[in-house]
Amino acid sequence: MKISCQKSDLLNGVNIVMKAVPAKSTMPILECLIIEASGQGIKLIANDMEIGIETFVNGMVLETGSVALNAKVFSEIIRRLPDNEVNIFTDDNYVTEITCEKSRFSIMGRSGEEFPKLPAIIKERPLTLSQFTLKEIIRQTVFSISDNESNKIMTGELFDIKKNELRVISLDGHRISIRKVMLKEEYEDKKVIIPGKTLNEISKILSGEASSNADIYFSDKHALFEFDDTVVVTRLIEGEYYRIDQMLSSDYETKISINKKELLSCIERATLLIRETEKKPIIINISGNNFELSVNTSLGSMKEDIDIAMEGKDIIIGFNPRFLTEALRVIDDEIVDIYLINPKAPCFIRDKEQTYIYLILPVNIHVRSE
Amino acid sequence: MKISCQKSDLLNGVNIVMKAVPAKSTMPILECLIIEASGQGIKLIANDMEIGIETFVNGMVLETGSVALNAKVFSEIIRRLPDNEVNIFTDDNYVTEITCEKSRFSIMGRSGEEFPKLPAIIKERPLTLSQFTLKEIIRQTVFSISDNESNKIMTGELFDIKKNELRVISLDGHRISIRKVMLKEEYEDKKVIIPGKTLNEISKILSGEASSNADIYFSDKHALFEFDDTVVVTRLIEGEYYRIDQMLSSDYETKISINKKELLSCIERATLLIRETEKKPIIINISGNNFELSVNTSLGSMKEDIDIAMEGKDIIIGFNPRFLTEALRVIDDEIVDIYLINPKAPCFIRDKEQTYIYLILPVNIHVRSE
Repeated sequence: MKISCQKSDLLNGVNIVMKAVPAKSTMPILECLIIEASGQGIKLIANDMEIGIETFVNGMVLETGSVALNAKVFSEIIRRLPDNEVNIFTDDNYVTEITCEKSRFSIMGRSGEEFPKLPAIIKERPLTLSQFTLKEIIRQTVFSISDNESNKIMTGELFDIKKNELRVISLDGHRISIRKVMLKEEYEDKKVIIPGKTLNEISKILSGEASSNADIYFSDKHALFEFDDTVVVTRLIEGEYYRIDQMLSSDYETKISINKKELLSCIERATLLIRETEKKPIIINISGNNFELSVNTSLGSMKEDIDIAMEGKDIIIGFNPRFLTEALRVIDDEIVDIYLINPKAPCFIRDKEQTYIYLILPVNIHVRSE
Repeated sequence: MKISCQKSDLLNGVNIVMKAVPAKSTMPILECLIIEASGQGIKLIANDMEIGIETFVNGMVLETGSVALNAKVFSEIIRRLPDNEVNIFTDDNYVTEITCEKSRFSIMGRSGEEFPKLPAIIKERPLTLSQFTLKEIIRQTVFSISDNESNKIMTGELFDIKKNELRVISLDGHRISIRKVMLKEEYEDKKVIIPGKTLNEISKILSGEASSNADIYFSDKHALFEFDDTVVVTRLIEGEYYRIDQMLSSDYETKISINKKELLSCIERATLLIRETEKKPIIINISGNNFELSVNTSLGSMKEDIDIAMEGKDIIIGFNPRFLTEALRVIDDEIVDIYLINPKAPCFIRDKEQTYIYLILPVNIHVRSE
């Protein structure tokens, strides 16, 4: 195999496939990436069995062939090369020479034969989103998956397609995050659970441009994301997702409109006094058009007022501050609406069109902090 | 005690004294900082018994007094306050109210009485350097102190004053770093060993401006640095420093002039193939006007040529790459001169005026890598 390409193009491709290289694996071949030079061009491949990535790199194939190289060593070498043309040559014993300007590296490669192929997925009728939209909906929901592997379904996100509407949902037992996107076409109804970890990696690779698209294909056990010169294949999580619609009441007793940035800074200040081990809630006291946030811990106490617009009843309610801040951080609106029912019922942060809904369970302050 | 000041001024002062707050201490009072409000103004104090810092903060003293506050909690509160006027009020029980805009914090303080005072040092005839120079000479030498506490002297730097010349020296058994500075006046001869850790902290606080000065005073056991509104007092390390002059030969057999940036990137690339556990040297082969750097490890091999200007004999010599890179990184010259004697004698990187000298011991490549 013999190829030639620009360092920046190669590094870009390597950075993409590195997202599917496990730090350590019981199968050492998975710690490699594959360079495949063929009539199609130069393709890089990595696969950790949960997620597999292929990407094409601009460049010239001078001799077809393929080689498996330790991904970490190879990526670090490429990263440090001068910004110029890189030549890679692999002989029959997989000894691989990497040259760039006056640098000559030689590393031991191996055959890529035992490397697991990416699952084949029939590409029919993709679900098409702009890269911007896909990146945004992942960012705006993925924080509330659970990282507890004992409940596999909570570690994924539901992609729920109904006609021309896509809802992306994540939940962890304390909160639910929902983003709704209108699609340009109508699709067959479909529900799939995609691992949150995969979505995180995909969102890092997505350029996030509104003008370029990502196509998503589904098979029974896999989803395939295709964008730019890259294909990402991920396993789906098996099982049935939680029925959440019955939890989404639109009734409320209290509605407030509050400046998001002010609320966020205020909660962040209150959090300073909360020790990880103590798990004290923040207490919100809404009365008249006044919003008072307070916290009282072993380190001290803090009180702060924020101006709000309010409808409905006064209420005192407690929250785990992290659940509020994580939702507020991903909302782009300057003013957010918060809907409350009573101190034991979930609160909802949502916009009028319900393009986003964040349901957060309160903390029982009468038991826990008094 | 009652004071009022701007958040940015207070935060700046807190960040300075935090350098003398230990992360954990067997004496809990040391985890505090002191706010002292007096006729002199608002002073912040911290002291971990190795290094003590006092700094003045602009602001108004509305009621004199002092309080000791947990430094970590206090600094995090101040950091997160809105950018506006901060009021601090401590009552007779040391309960401390911090208010800023609509935020009201209340934390428990304590008396500062048991807090260890900074040692008194008579301020006579300071050694005066610009902040820029002091910051630079620390940066250019402190990397080669030893962090092995069993040899206390190697954890410090020698400040060696002779007439109108200051030499700052650090060494760790494998290398010596020397920076020479001409002083504006003549001083009495003096040799003191200052803890490297203290110098690191001081260099972080120094503004680095060429137009403002730092004054240094010495007592038998302490040094006091004074600059801007800040005083730093550090313990000195007791004992006699190594006699290094006999090691500083100016004879050489080979002299090369090489582009510093090219050499540095080349060594950094070679280092990629060296595993921490393997400790393989890089090998430099100088012959004619050619400089070849190579490395050969279990991960692979690498060779690279660099153009140089050369005088004297050909030589093949091995080095620990870290010792070369750390010295090269702090040199500002574009072209550096390297002087070599033989494969077992130290090499010297130095400029003509010897404002900097980096002595580095080679690695015996005939034993270790063949």
